[in-house]
Amino acid sequence: MIDQTPAWQVVKDHAETLKRHHLRELFAAETDRQPRFTRRAAGLTLDLSKQRWSAETLAYLLALAEAAEVPDAIRRLLDGERVNVSEDRPALHTALRLPADASLVVEGEDLVPGVHRTLDRMATMVERFHAGQWRGATGKAITDVVNLGVGGSDLGPVMVTHALADYRPREVHPVEVHFASTMDGSQLADYLGRLSPETTLFVLSSKSFTTIDTLSNASTARDWLMARLGGEEGVDAELVMRQHFIGVSASPGKMAEWGIAEAHQLEFWEWVGGRYSLWGAIGLPIALVVGMEHFRALLAGAHAMDVHFREAPLADNLPVLLALAGIWNVNFLDIRAHSILPYDGRLEYFAAYLEQLEMESNGKSVAHDGREVGYATCPVLWGQLGPNAQHAFYQLLHQGTQAVECDFIAPLRRYDDVEDAATRTHLKGQHRLTLANCFAQSRVLMLGDDAIPDDGPRPGHKRYRGNQPSTTLLLDALTPATLGALIALYEHKVFVQATVWGINPFDQWGVELGKKIAGETQRILESHQGVEAMDASTRALIEAAWAAEEETRA
Amino acid sequence: MIDQTPAWQVVKDHAETLKRHHLRELFAAETDRQPRFTRRAAGLTLDLSKQRWSAETLAYLLALAEAAEVPDAIRRLLDGERVNVSEDRPALHTALRLPADASLVVEGEDLVPGVHRTLDRMATMVERFHAGQWRGATGKAITDVVNLGVGGSDLGPVMVTHALADYRPREVHPVEVHFASTMDGSQLADYLGRLSPETTLFVLSSKSFTTIDTLSNASTARDWLMARLGGEEGVDAELVMRQHFIGVSASPGKMAEWGIAEAHQLEFWEWVGGRYSLWGAIGLPIALVVGMEHFRALLAGAHAMDVHFREAPLADNLPVLLALAGIWNVNFLDIRAHSILPYDGRLEYFAAYLEQLEMESNGKSVAHDGREVGYATCPVLWGQLGPNAQHAFYQLLHQGTQAVECDFIAPLRRYDDVEDAATRTHLKGQHRLTLANCFAQSRVLMLGDDAIPDDGPRPGHKRYRGNQPSTTLLLDALTPATLGALIALYEHKVFVQATVWGINPFDQWGVELGKKIAGETQRILESHQGVEAMDASTRALIEAAWAAEEETRA
Repeated sequence: MIDQTPAWQVVKDHAETLKRHHLRELFAAETDRQPRFTRRAAGLTLDLSKQRWSAETLAYLLALAEAAEVPDAIRRLLDGERVNVSEDRPALHTALRLPADASLVVEGEDLVPGVHRTLDRMATMVERFHAGQWRGATGKAITDVVNLGVGGSDLGPVMVTHALADYRPREVHPVEVHFASTMDGSQLADYLGRLSPETTLFVLSSKSFTTIDTLSNASTARDWLMARLGGEEGVDAELVMRQHFIGVSASPGKMAEWGIAEAHQLEFWEWVGGRYSLWGAIGLPIALVVGMEHFRALLAGAHAMDVHFREAPLADNLPVLLALAGIWNVNFLDIRAHSILPYDGRLEYFAAYLEQLEMESNGKSVAHDGREVGYATCPVLWGQLGPNAQHAFYQLLHQGTQAVECDFIAPLRRYDDVEDAATRTHLKGQHRLTLANCFAQSRVLMLGDDAIPDDGPRPGHKRYRGNQPSTTLLLDALTPATLGALIALYEHKVFVQATVWGINPFDQWGVELGKKIAGETQRILESHQGVEAMDASTRALIEAAWAAEEETRA
Repeated sequence: MIDQTPAWQVVKDHAETLKRHHLRELFAAETDRQPRFTRRAAGLTLDLSKQRWSAETLAYLLALAEAAEVPDAIRRLLDGERVNVSEDRPALHTALRLPADASLVVEGEDLVPGVHRTLDRMATMVERFHAGQWRGATGKAITDVVNLGVGGSDLGPVMVTHALADYRPREVHPVEVHFASTMDGSQLADYLGRLSPETTLFVLSSKSFTTIDTLSNASTARDWLMARLGGEEGVDAELVMRQHFIGVSASPGKMAEWGIAEAHQLEFWEWVGGRYSLWGAIGLPIALVVGMEHFRALLAGAHAMDVHFREAPLADNLPVLLALAGIWNVNFLDIRAHSILPYDGRLEYFAAYLEQLEMESNGKSVAHDGREVGYATCPVLWGQLGPNAQHAFYQLLHQGTQAVECDFIAPLRRYDDVEDAATRTHLKGQHRLTLANCFAQSRVLMLGDDAIPDDGPRPGHKRYRGNQPSTTLLLDALTPATLGALIALYEHKVFVQATVWGINPFDQWGVELGKKIAGETQRILESHQGVEAMDASTRALIEAAWAAEEETRA
């Protein structure tokens, strides 16, 4: 275990001394702090100078990363070794963004041609939609695509399509892309109420093709289509299935069984984790919104970060540095919460995306050998658009009793392409205001009261402690390429942390038991049998549900 | 300070013993646990039996509440005493939901008539929209209303309109309500691109009417309207201002100055905190979506909870019990994170709403007398729709290293009103599935491995610790009335916790310094003067922004 190594002990001892100093003292003590803790790669600038650490700290942490064999782990990940130990397979989301002329031979097979065959099939599909040539069963061009998927089959596509909405291609047949993920049918019911069955197509995205949330929604959607289109002249069930469904899964057998036409199946691989899957077929909704060219630019940006991750020395390696800052906060400063604060409305879903990426990957407590770790792993991660959160939970960041690490994320350039000059000036002003807020907040979190000139004694409730660590991450501009790099940065950060913590970031056994029990509870609810095996609370909850159903019938 | 009282010490000593027992043992040891820890009020059922506590714990916590004078604090709040000490005023959101025939005399004035005058003015406005009689400057009926507001002027209306979308009145002139909150103009830019200026009206919601986020958006919107409508025949600036803007604020002077016509100003009071303000004029977008009758039902539901809060003994009092469970977790079990997990897609924004309500209210660390408290206050609170979070961060809840308190929220009855029988059956099945998941998850979090029949030894990565405390909150159905009660429940919970912690939940000084510094940073960014006063990191960030602007110009 890493906490038994001398390298860990060195960091721990050092932390005892360092903790006694306020961040403003640390910052003031190192005059070269800003350049020392700032690094650039792939259109991103990472400023870690407002972390509660010193040059010495970072040196010890880099030694810890060496002790945890991070360089070798990076190589093993990118080479396709079986890093996902509990499921005995590689984790090869990075293969999905290799350029066509690359080659990656894993266990005897070059993966790149297969990856690009899928991308080419996606391109063909997207072209058909954008040419208005994908027609529904009654012959009308499809205008609305509803993605049915949850977790990794939802969060990535939702986040990216929202972030890159400015990159919609012009002069193509317009196709609106919608997302329905919740198993209770809420979003789907709304779409069914307002979309036309003749021009609506559903994408069923599920790695296993057994996800009940998605299959429930899919079956409601299928019946809705059949009831409305089945009676039309010349329309049979097969035609409806073929023209109104695309399947995306690692299980072609299950897709076929459900009725997805073979030509409309997009397959991906077991070695792609759900939360790492937006780079391939699961990204179809993204490609539909931004076009294939921009989708490929997204991949290229992520690949640029992969190359940086493999080649840069640890001390210059963005994902490694970001990971070490997190480990320092969690394990040595006892900070258990991490807030993601983008200062750009287009990144509205970025925090939700990272919640899955980080907490599902590293919310673990056993090492590869099954022993429990004796130290904290993944913190609770949450966030909100920064300017909005300023009016919501920043109060706790500034004056609460709990320390929180913050990531501030902002694009430097924006609104260059707004056509109307007056509107452009207005919006650029709003962007400048947003940057001012971003920079000001990290400064106050660092310095507290010292950020303002002394205006005499203030009562306790007007005092600010400061000393809250933060990272600032600047994008040159928010483009497909920098977004790709940004996502890959966090993916690799998670991997580095998992490596140091000795846990497997690529499995998710913690969700399996819940699924099993939900099935059992569902059977009890449906059959009215077996409730006596439940605990008293669950029994009462189930009985309350039955009573409500009775009441409805009465 | 409360932690110096004997009552606190008793709970603390008791916790030392209790902590040694797994929740499944505690649960098994008390056969009457389910009824003992379950209470009902105002259409809500609160089941606290899956908290990590015992009957004895609760008795001690109730004594702690008595020691903190919670009963008197409740009376003082509801009677309109100056409970907001640092701002020397009462906190009277409960007055906004008093029925018309009630009376609440505060400092010599009955507040109820004024409250109902505002409600009646809102009703008149809503009627004009719904009759298609609110016309834009060129004479066309308004079809789109954009609410410009942030924080309390955004989160409440967004959350409630989304939750109650099923309650839209039929057969009225359709008016779509949109929300733009982010200061960077993201959402607004999107609306301006697709709405028609002739039929769009903006509601400017800001308690102080100085919120720069909202005023930036408002000025962009005003210029957009003027540029497009100003040239039309018979249309002058005054007409545009009058027909396309409504103001909602506690500052009529500032509204008038900005150009809001007097007849279209809705005023509210300094004694309503922003995050408690959806019950009055700030709720205009809600009333526009669901109609005034349903808005009044929302108020009535909240009022029912207020009556319960005032009248029920502590041991039966839902807000008090919910608050004590939180205090127990935070202060005695050292749990620093709290997850809000609604099993109903309509409550998609409920967690974001509570993030503000709880963290802005209780993210404090000084007592009323300005001294620092020596104990933890508000935990980090975050959430997501439960079924979706199952595919995202539940991994951390089940197998992470950090304990988290969870609130499960679900409606018992749903989809009774879906007209099409087949769709209704489908959707009711999806609802049942959702309940099964909700009940199953709290059970697994409690019992861990014990929730499934033993199927032989499992490796470490397939083991579940359990022992995670949770609350289950059932709504008979999600209606305007139960939603009102649900929100009021959390409002009062926050107040009870603040009372025990000895902090003021009604101020937010922690956000003020940030605003001040943002103004300063903005001036530096604009004027290119004064950057040398900044720390090296902030200076480099500002210089990067300048360089990006240069590049754009070049």
